[in-house]
Amino acid sequence: MPIVTKTVAELSAALRELIEAHPGGADSGDEPVGVGFVPTMGALHEGHGTLVRTARSRNDIVAVSIFVNRLQFNDPVDYERYPRTLDADVELLARAGADVVFAPEESEVYPDGNPLVVVSSGVLGEKFEGASRPGHFDGMLAVVSKLLNFAQPSLLTSKKVNYTAFFGQKDAQQLAIIRRMVQDLAYNVEIAAVPIVRSDRGLALSSRNQFLSEAQAEAALVLSRALFLLKARADAHEPLNIDDAVALIDAEPLVELDYLEVVDPSTLEPIGVNCQDTPFTGSALALVAARVGEVRLIDNMPLGS
Amino acid sequence: MPIVTKTVAELSAALRELIEAHPGGADSGDEPVGVGFVPTMGALHEGHGTLVRTARSRNDIVAVSIFVNRLQFNDPVDYERYPRTLDADVELLARAGADVVFAPEESEVYPDGNPLVVVSSGVLGEKFEGASRPGHFDGMLAVVSKLLNFAQPSLLTSKKVNYTAFFGQKDAQQLAIIRRMVQDLAYNVEIAAVPIVRSDRGLALSSRNQFLSEAQAEAALVLSRALFLLKARADAHEPLNIDDAVALIDAEPLVELDYLEVVDPSTLEPIGVNCQDTPFTGSALALVAARVGEVRLIDNMPLGS
Repeated sequence: MPIVTKTVAELSAALRELIEAHPGGADSGDEPVGVGFVPTMGALHEGHGTLVRTARSRNDIVAVSIFVNRLQFNDPVDYERYPRTLDADVELLARAGADVVFAPEESEVYPDGNPLVVVSSGVLGEKFEGASRPGHFDGMLAVVSKLLNFAQPSLLTSKKVNYTAFFGQKDAQQLAIIRRMVQDLAYNVEIAAVPIVRSDRGLALSSRNQFLSEAQAEAALVLSRALFLLKARADAHEPLNIDDAVALIDAEPLVELDYLEVVDPSTLEPIGVNCQDTPFTGSALALVAARVGEVRLIDNMPLGS
Repeated sequence: MPIVTKTVAELSAALRELIEAHPGGADSGDEPVGVGFVPTMGALHEGHGTLVRTARSRNDIVAVSIFVNRLQFNDPVDYERYPRTLDADVELLARAGADVVFAPEESEVYPDGNPLVVVSSGVLGEKFEGASRPGHFDGMLAVVSKLLNFAQPSLLTSKKVNYTAFFGQKDAQQLAIIRRMVQDLAYNVEIAAVPIVRSDRGLALSSRNQFLSEAQAEAALVLSRALFLLKARADAHEPLNIDDAVALIDAEPLVELDYLEVVDPSTLEPIGVNCQDTPFTGSALALVAARVGEVRLIDNMPLGS
């Protein structure tokens, strides 16, 4: 079972002990000790399992945080109702190979109440998912900006260390904003994206899929079909003609499209010229969001190199 | 002479080499290698010399950055005119004992133009000095949030390291905002404040003092006199009665008071109860700003424990 820590000091000490106990990383010829970190809000499912197993396969030591971050909820009721399932989470993390769990109380993460100095996602956080959830991405950054530093291996370890944090590609906008924060604040951590896990038929796995009826789940397949259409065209360096992908979704009466856009992966700005009848070159990110009955689904697809 | 580096990679490599070459820090009984960092905008004077010598006296390795940060200037003309005196700066830093200088171009610090994800000083940056310089403290945080990570010793060093950044107490609001950023973003760096250097008669040293006439310099002494009055009362656990200190300044016709406030050092909120006729306990910070002729002067004094 992983070591479960509640305070930053305990997390840091546990990581330091594991790093110092690792056989490598001390001599100039040694590979650095790899430390992987996976921040979560708990209520873990197999999507998180994939994240942790990916971190496990690339690192010597894996830490996972479980913290339901009040600041990224728009609705206090949603925050209160968010499932807290620590025992089951720790079981899943044990199977996925985590070494250390960090499950702090709110008073440990925000000892002085809400932050006074805040990290703002700016224009990146206002569009797409941010348009319907004002403040969400700033609240997310408030905790991620701290967690990446909480789990950063201590400079007091006498070993060479590589530090990587793992995020799911599923939340593409969150990932883009975190990458941009790491770049704009020059955080000393590598950000690794773990690809979307899909059902055999292409539906991006999400805990929300359980709320879809069989007919809705069938209809929802149109989202990934639209994305794969764009990907096929990108791979063939053909014009993307996004309208075709939009038409595909619009033809499905159970699916109400919110947005389908092809954007620059780092700025989230729409890529104009590559989307009309110019052959596609370079790299981009296709983002889609839609409502299927009461359920809002998002999906995305990296395009090009 | 210090090693002068221009890129983040060069800075990081230079620090790493010095850390690895240091005799201590490898074994469990060793003290960590102390790395001190002093961020500056160049045009260095003896105030900076004191900062660097303080860092030198407490660390094994000292790095100093020189970067005129466009984002913290309200007026583009001021930015253009800001003195760039790299050769003289490096001479001064050699005498003060710096090992590494980091003097990057703007394209190295902001390779993608202005940051998209920004650190905001919030209410802390709107009052006092921020009231007359909107955006100044956010611009300052844009660069300090990066510089502290640029100069952070690499996790790839196989030595135990202590990392401390040094700032002058003179810019008390800047210091408070940086401390709060480090706390709210959980940066793994210790922030050390270097006390104000004063003339024999009490005037806080500043490059602006050269613009004061003899009579103005004499009149400006009232600022530190007012602060020392508050300090004497705080040390004696007497009521501060700030009005007396204000009256002292108001009685000096050459000095036009902007603000004199006693605040909580971490929130910069005025401390009410301790300032009237209640005996002073705890700790606080007295801040003063005034105009003497064309010259704006600031000074401050930590009160209590």
